[in-house]
Formats: sequence, C-alpha cells, structure tokens
Amino acid sequence: MPVDFRTRRESLRRLLAERELDAILVTDLLNIRYLTGFTGSNAALVVSASDSASDERATVICTDGRYVTQVAEQVPDLRAEIARSSAAHLIEKSTMPVLAFESHVATFAEHRAWTEAAPKIRFEPVSGLVEQLRMVKDEHEVELLRAACTSADVALAQLIARGGLRPGRTEREVGRELENLMLDNGADGISFETIVAAGVNSAIPHHRPTDAILASGDFVKLDFGAQVGGYHSDMTRTYVLESVSDWQREIYELVARSQAAGCDALAPGVECAAVDAAARSVIDDAGYGELFLHGLGHGVGLEIHEAPGIGKLGTGTLLSGAAVTVEPGVYFSGRGGVRIEDTLVVREQGPELLTLTAKDLTVV
Amino acid sequence: MPVDFRTRRESLRRLLAERELDAILVTDLLNIRYLTGFTGSNAALVVSASDSASDERATVICTDGRYVTQVAEQVPDLRAEIARSSAAHLIEKSTMPVLAFESHVATFAEHRAWTEAAPKIRFEPVSGLVEQLRMVKDEHEVELLRAACTSADVALAQLIARGGLRPGRTEREVGRELENLMLDNGADGISFETIVAAGVNSAIPHHRPTDAILASGDFVKLDFGAQVGGYHSDMTRTYVLESVSDWQREIYELVARSQAAGCDALAPGVECAAVDAAARSVIDDAGYGELFLHGLGHGVGLEIHEAPGIGKLGTGTLLSGAAVTVEPGVYFSGRGGVRIEDTLVVREQGPELLTLTAKDLTVV
Repeated sequence: MPVDFRTRRESLRRLLAERELDAILVTDLLNIRYLTGFTGSNAALVVSASDSASDERATVICTDGRYVTQVAEQVPDLRAEIARSSAAHLIEKSTMPVLAFESHVATFAEHRAWTEAAPKIRFEPVSGLVEQLRMVKDEHEVELLRAACTSADVALAQLIARGGLRPGRTEREVGRELENLMLDNGADGISFETIVAAGVNSAIPHHRPTDAILASGDFVKLDFGAQVGGYHSDMTRTYVLESVSDWQREIYELVARSQAAGCDALAPGVECAAVDAAARSVIDDAGYGELFLHGLGHGVGLEIHEAPGIGKLGTGTLLSGAAVTVEPGVYFSGRGGVRIEDTLVVREQGPELLTLTAKDLTVV
Repeated sequence: MPVDFRTRRESLRRLLAERELDAILVTDLLNIRYLTGFTGSNAALVVSASDSASDERATVICTDGRYVTQVAEQVPDLRAEIARSSAAHLIEKSTMPVLAFESHVATFAEHRAWTEAAPKIRFEPVSGLVEQLRMVKDEHEVELLRAACTSADVALAQLIARGGLRPGRTEREVGRELENLMLDNGADGISFETIVAAGVNSAIPHHRPTDAILASGDFVKLDFGAQVGGYHSDMTRTYVLESVSDWQREIYELVARSQAAGCDALAPGVECAAVDAAARSVIDDAGYGELFLHGLGHGVGLEIHEAPGIGKLGTGTLLSGAAVTVEPGVYFSGRGGVRIEDTLVVREQGPELLTLTAKDLTVV
C-alpha cells in the first residue's frame, strides 16, 4: 500500500484554512516525516494553503547537501531546496506576508533569528496542528504499528519458549535477549529501553534493568516495544517465576480486570478521562487506588508517547483510528507490582487489539 | 573519584557574574545532569549567582513525583521541589526580578507561557552558557569518556578475533554483533546507530547498515561508539577484507596521514579551523580535496556531537581539556571510501588519545 502523503498534506491545508492561515513552516522532523516521508536529520517544510492535491507548487521542502539523493527519492512529488539552514532558507525565499510556525517546536532563539532576518513576515504561533492529524492513524500507519506489535509478540514468545525467563538470570540479560529477539523478528530498532523488573523491583513503575537476579516466586515485569518504519509498539506483561502465591494471584487478577475494563471503554467519542476512570474504578473499588501511580495510557505512533494522553486529567475525546495504550498497574512498594499493557486502535466496531500475547496469569 | 557538581555550579556563577545576571533557569536536561547529576526525564534548575559553594540556599532543582527518591539520592546537596511542570513551578516561586533562560532550549510557546504567568519577571535570553563549560572536561568526565572508548576498543578487538568481520556476513549482522560486544564490555548503551558500510557503501559517509553482504576485497568501514555514565565514545576504523588493491592502499595511507596531521594539530589555543586545515591540506595536496565531504571533527561528551565544531568554518579556539574527534575521510562514489576517526582530549603536553585500536592498514 503506497503511503498517501498528499492526503495528509491536504488535511493540514484544511486545518490552515479553518484558521485563515496562508501557510505553515513545519520544523518538527517527525511532523515532516509524517507529511512527506522524508527521514533525514535536517529539514524544514512550508505547506501552502493555496495549493491543492493536484498542484503543490507553493509547497516546498528544504534539507542540506547530505540528503540530495535521499530527498529526491523519498519526496518525489514536492519541490526540494538544498541549504544548510533549512528553515532560515525557506523563510528567506518566502513571499508570504504571514507564516504560521510550530511554536511548541521552534526555540525562542530560532524565532528571534527568523523575525530579525525577515522583518516583513508576520510569524503566527500555532501549536500541535500536525500532531492533531497524527492522532488518527491511516491504514498504512496501522499496518506499521501492527508489524511492530507482531515483532514484540514473537520476540516474547521465543524468549519464553527457549526458557529465557528463569531463576538465576539477571534483569539485564533478559532485557538484552528480548531486544535482540525483536531485532531478529523484523524490528528496525527498539521503541525504548526495555524494562525488566524482577521481585521487589517490579514495584517500581519505570525500573531500569540491573544485575538483580531473577528468583523463584518473583513477579517479572517486562515493558518493551519494537520499532518498524518509524512506528512504535508498546506492551507490558507480568509473569510469575515457578510458583505463585495468593497475594500475587489477587493483585494480578485485579490488574487484569482493570485492564479489560479500560480496553472495553475505548470507543470513538468517549472522553479520555472516562477511559481512565473505567479502569481506575476497578482498582479503587478493591481499595488499592493509591497504588495505581500513573495515568492509564497514551497515544502511540511515530513517537512512543504522543497525543492523546489517557489519564485522570485527560482532556478531549477519543477519535476513531487513534492508537493508544491501556496499562494499569498496582505497585506494592518493597514487595512487587503488576502492570498489563496493550496497544490498541480505537474503532467504531470496538477496539482492535494489536499486541496479541496472552494476558492470563502465567507461571513460567 | 566523586563528581564535583558544586565546582561546576560555581563556574556557571562566574559566567553569570560576568554578564551581571542574578540567576539562570536551566531547562536542558543534559545541562541539568552536568550541573547536578540528576538523570530523570523532567527537571528544571535555578542557579542563583548570589549563592556560593558553601551556601547554595537560593539554588533549587524541581522534578515531578516519579523522581522524589531519585532526586534526593542524586542531588543531596540542593533543595528539591516536586511539581509536574517543573520550570513553571520554579518561575512561580521565584523572587528574582530578572531571570536568564536558555533561549536555544526553551520553545517560543514555553517562553510565552512563562512571561504570561510571571509578568513581573524579566526573562533574559542567554544561549550556550552551560555548553561553554561542558566543552572543557574535568577528570571525572575524561574517566567516563575513557571507559566508553575502552568498551568500543575491546568490542572491536573481540569482533575481529572471533572472525566476525568476514565475507558472507551482512552489514546488519556485523553491526548487531559489535553493539552487543560493547554492551558485554561495560557499555550502558551505544552512542549512536552503528555504521557498517561494505564495498561501494563505504563511499557513503553516513550509511545505515543493510543486508548487503561483505565480500572479499571490500573496504569495511565501522563507525561506532559506546556510552558509559552518559558519556559517548566515537571511533571509525576501515578494514580491507582478505586482499588489498593498490588504489585502496593509496587512499588508506592518504587518509591515515591526514588523520595524523589533524591529531598533531590539536593544542590549546589553536583555531578549530586551523585543525581542520591541517588535516584537509594533506588530502587537498593529493588532489582529492573534493572527496572529503564533511568537517574534520566535533566535540564529544554528554552528547555525541557537541561544541566545539572542527570544520572549515569552525569558529573559536581549542581549550585544554576539550574532548574532540578527528575523522577525515575520502569517498570515491560507486567504488569505496575510507574514514579513520579517534576521540582525543586536548592537553598542554599534546593530545591524549582515548581510542586505542591500531590504525595501520589491516587486512582481515
């Protein structure tokens, strides 16, 4: 399936028109990648609202000399300029009286340099316009998210099948092996530093792997993801080593019920805060509410954390096509904790689960 | 050796006093790490010029609830505030009439929100103040750089000793193995995605590893580094597989001479552009000047690329204690290329070489 960058730029033009903006200077590299497919490390893009899908002559990308070949290959349908200071160059060439810019991306110093270099242009701050589009994934994006989630699912299955999760290994060894297995199974890279947290460490929500040794009876929490084509998967599973005790079973089943409630609440038009509440109330009702220390989830895509945030204070409503995580946790400090997390896509007919690894309490 | 964060903050206070600034709000996370040791993902720091090494009561760090324990452990000598919006919180609490801020770090939107929330404070843009201090490494930093370089040296030696560099393997396999070997040998992480470029790909300065297969007679260029305690090593070696031809020998020896000339030119007080010229003139004189496509080197430390830049247009002079790379290259498009790169520390008594792997033309 070819990626339809042109349609994405048309969507941005509609947002510009709604705000009566003639053009926007995009400087966030992920936003540029989303709108054009360009993956180099230096670029700026001007999208003109007066252009159309069939005529994009006033829309232009700029990058430096290292990327002459790459920009021609990745962005064949747009005019490309070559200059070291890509944003400054496009501003210098611009004939627009008003240029919107990404005020959450441009630094104070960049903005000041631009206004000094082009005193005739009025620079209009806008924030999060492209990110708003990125919240709703098109089918090409879902395909990449699916591939990333599959890489993580297969890696975890192989890790367990080969006995990689066993007493005597260190957290660090397990993390390294899981990361290598993702790379063996189609990942271009990892989404973030893998969390492997055993025993009492499982009570730390974001624990960095150490030389701590996995022991029989431990909870082992694995939070990890693969990257494919720039898109990130995100999944957490918590296992028990060799034997499970009653308190572990109780807390696991509780988090699993909370997680299921959160997933069930995902639907277009639902308030993000209501999704958080659906999962949180399960844990609150069990009397463990203050041990659920973080928000329920977040959007995921070209960034591992992106809009929308799903927490107590989450503003806005879910849109069909949003890709999000649902990841409640309960953490008993000094004892152990459980988190269960999936990546899903919000759909009219019910959420589409992308991370397929089983979630039953599993003793390995 | 304990890290002397207090001395670093005192150096920053001297820079503030020179500029008649009362206090600075630091929001760059690496600058905060440099000044305090804090490694969390959310923080802001106000350093007051009126404080002293023995009394830092007006200097304060802020981070969020996830890092309550961590900030107490990592920054025992400073007052810590806990708030979700760390910079906004410190601004709200500030009694300073003028507050300098990092204008190359703060976004336009952040600055605007700050000025609206605290209309009585005058926000004074400053740029690169902490980065200026970071250019000169103290002995604790050099120790970490040395450890990172050792990890890379040992990994490369092991790769070659076990026959990891041989015809039939893919670039990707070699890159993965080298990265794993660095992690086996003391690295906390890798400095950047390892470059493995074989045959014609070696002519591409920054080539991402592919499934291209290493063949007899190929140049194989390896550009890679390890990270230890936040500090990055950076090294490039180019090998020849099984047999070397005359043109390969010629270009290799040329780049090696250029690299030696660049290293020899490193001394306190020397213009960065003069170091570039010392190496570049060797290649120019051989008639290959236009095949040396990039600058000679860059500073290295908490970032893989930091000040000073060493290129044709490099401004400023080298300081004793600066850690830099020297990495000339010659690239014959469609045929092959050579780059040789070391990480060194500028010293009065001559540069200290941190990457110790041999640089003689080596046929593996």
